[in-house]
Amino acid sequence: MDQSDPFRDKRDLFDLPDGIVYLDGNSLGALPKAVKSRLREVVEEEWGKSLIAGWFDHHWVTLPQRTGDKIAMLIGADAGEVVVTESTSINLYRAIHAALQLRGGKAVILTEELNFPTDLYVLDAIERDSGGTVAVRRVKKDRLMENLTDEVAILTLTHANYRTSGRHDLAALTAKAREAGALTVWDLSHSAGALPVDLNGSGVDFAIGCGYKFLNGGPGGCGYIFVARRHQNKILPTLAGWMGHKRPFDFSPDYEPAGGITRQLTGTPFVLGIAALDAALEVFEGVDMTALADKAGKLGDLFIALVEEQCPEIGLACPRAAHLRTSQVTFRHRNAENIMAALAKRSVIGDFRPPDVMRFGLTPLYTRYEDVFRAATALKDILKN
Amino acid sequence: MDQSDPFRDKRDLFDLPDGIVYLDGNSLGALPKAVKSRLREVVEEEWGKSLIAGWFDHHWVTLPQRTGDKIAMLIGADAGEVVVTESTSINLYRAIHAALQLRGGKAVILTEELNFPTDLYVLDAIERDSGGTVAVRRVKKDRLMENLTDEVAILTLTHANYRTSGRHDLAALTAKAREAGALTVWDLSHSAGALPVDLNGSGVDFAIGCGYKFLNGGPGGCGYIFVARRHQNKILPTLAGWMGHKRPFDFSPDYEPAGGITRQLTGTPFVLGIAALDAALEVFEGVDMTALADKAGKLGDLFIALVEEQCPEIGLACPRAAHLRTSQVTFRHRNAENIMAALAKRSVIGDFRPPDVMRFGLTPLYTRYEDVFRAATALKDILKN
Repeated sequence: MDQSDPFRDKRDLFDLPDGIVYLDGNSLGALPKAVKSRLREVVEEEWGKSLIAGWFDHHWVTLPQRTGDKIAMLIGADAGEVVVTESTSINLYRAIHAALQLRGGKAVILTEELNFPTDLYVLDAIERDSGGTVAVRRVKKDRLMENLTDEVAILTLTHANYRTSGRHDLAALTAKAREAGALTVWDLSHSAGALPVDLNGSGVDFAIGCGYKFLNGGPGGCGYIFVARRHQNKILPTLAGWMGHKRPFDFSPDYEPAGGITRQLTGTPFVLGIAALDAALEVFEGVDMTALADKAGKLGDLFIALVEEQCPEIGLACPRAAHLRTSQVTFRHRNAENIMAALAKRSVIGDFRPPDVMRFGLTPLYTRYEDVFRAATALKDILKN
Repeated sequence: MDQSDPFRDKRDLFDLPDGIVYLDGNSLGALPKAVKSRLREVVEEEWGKSLIAGWFDHHWVTLPQRTGDKIAMLIGADAGEVVVTESTSINLYRAIHAALQLRGGKAVILTEELNFPTDLYVLDAIERDSGGTVAVRRVKKDRLMENLTDEVAILTLTHANYRTSGRHDLAALTAKAREAGALTVWDLSHSAGALPVDLNGSGVDFAIGCGYKFLNGGPGGCGYIFVARRHQNKILPTLAGWMGHKRPFDFSPDYEPAGGITRQLTGTPFVLGIAALDAALEVFEGVDMTALADKAGKLGDLFIALVEEQCPEIGLACPRAAHLRTSQVTFRHRNAENIMAALAKRSVIGDFRPPDVMRFGLTPLYTRYEDVFRAATALKDILKN
């Protein structure tokens, strides 16, 4: 299977430690070799030698937009619709406030009770600070459709669930939200770079995501925000700042928003972090996202088959059908935490999520079928002993 | 003067390009050599080899607090009162919302009309989004004291002015604000690492600042926020997120704020950027801030004396008395923009601020008296021709 893998050459683009089976790229992506040379160049040549002139001579000032354009290609957005800035949580705050502004008045925000925790914290703080104008409604995944009534102003969900490995039907939920007159804010942290996403094809209004999982931007790499072009110039950003000003270097005392996605920027861009992400995105050159997700599905199918055959006491905790799964598989065992620690001792890295979930990320650019086989074998050995 | 400079050995800690007189470290600090090796280590060893385990094995997870503690020592704060996160603008938003929450109800925010532009944009957006409960009052610098009445809920100022090179009397204004019952939010972007700052000695409530000027953290390096210990556990952050949760790795659906300054964190910390800043702060080891500011004063005095003697058509645009200046000197000329471009051609780097301001940063850890002499000589030659 590895020999006929259309992505087999991609693994060489990463710096992976010898002997490790790394099944945690859904949490922190591996180091692309291009990042090493790019960061050295940015630090030692651009910053070290050009100093302040780097902002224009090395185009640092447009890095958030240029890197955003690269992400746009992975998520079905157009150039000029994505910008890289701050963290996922800050971008969710930014997107929700933009959506609230477009809607005006009182607003119900609909989300899933198993949404990623930080997303729920962001929403709850917005509700608390709203003085009674915003209400967050958390419902079970299978009740989302029926709750998408005309009462709802904003639907916000994480496309791919970090824990259950289930995915939402982004297109169907967005269509239903539009029908109900609600705006959509999708968190793509666990899907961008792993699953096909077609934001504009689905009519999504806002999306956000993180740079350090499937996008391999490094620990705590910057996040991004997508704003559909039709909304961009209607929003007065809640997080206003000089990099979103029409003429930032005029240092005017009055805010005049830039046009387009640039308006979403606030403070000075994090050049080091964005440059790392920008270089990391080179690994996606020529990658067809459908083919990539197809490989993830096959990796998952193989892993599930081996584990179910060899470890009957482990329960499957994710969808069995590949097209319903995210780019990870999840199992359940009452000793999950100890098992994951034992796997790590055998150089198989996945992660544990309380109370009993074992999570294995499948990152088809560098995960081999052999890795999945080794992980399943190690799991069998551990349970036997 | 250079031979008797107590900081003469510090210049060797920086990687400065040969032949350049760099007088723009107030805008982008020079590259500390320690950053190069530290970033290589973080990327190639920690991320590359430890992968996900780096969060705990290399203590990335506490980096915002540990780097914050190093900044605390430069600004008269205690350990546990500063955390490194996001940009100055985002941190100002965070601090103002925290102060508004402590005050409750309607609020007048007092600031200076020549405050740094992005700070004004942040304040104006907060006023606009407040639904009439917040009013921002911009006054001239010399009217601040008389405007500090009991009507004012929050006083927010940038300690050192980026354009006029004037500084506020932080202690006196904070004392007057306290007397009026107002909370203070100081932006230290242009003073931390350059001037003595005594936040706790002055009773300051909140402070924020940027990492890439006098702190040398690299282009767009992360900013920081100080929250006086007495307030820390009373604030429910407006920018809530998982890194501010009491037990982030429980992934609880409900937000429970961490104690202390950690509560101010939102998303995953930017490890690359914070590690760069952390390494950069090593250059301050053993530095007495009063002695550092004393050298900045002498550098400025020399520069002013040389320019006034040799270039009578250039006007002084900053305070003449060193103790009223920031760590820069500012001149004025109707051809300022062209003069700065001509200086750059002669390897003297300062910057231009519209409409007619020439700004020269004095960063006493690496600026020599010889540099100031060369800059003044180049200026004289340019004006002669």
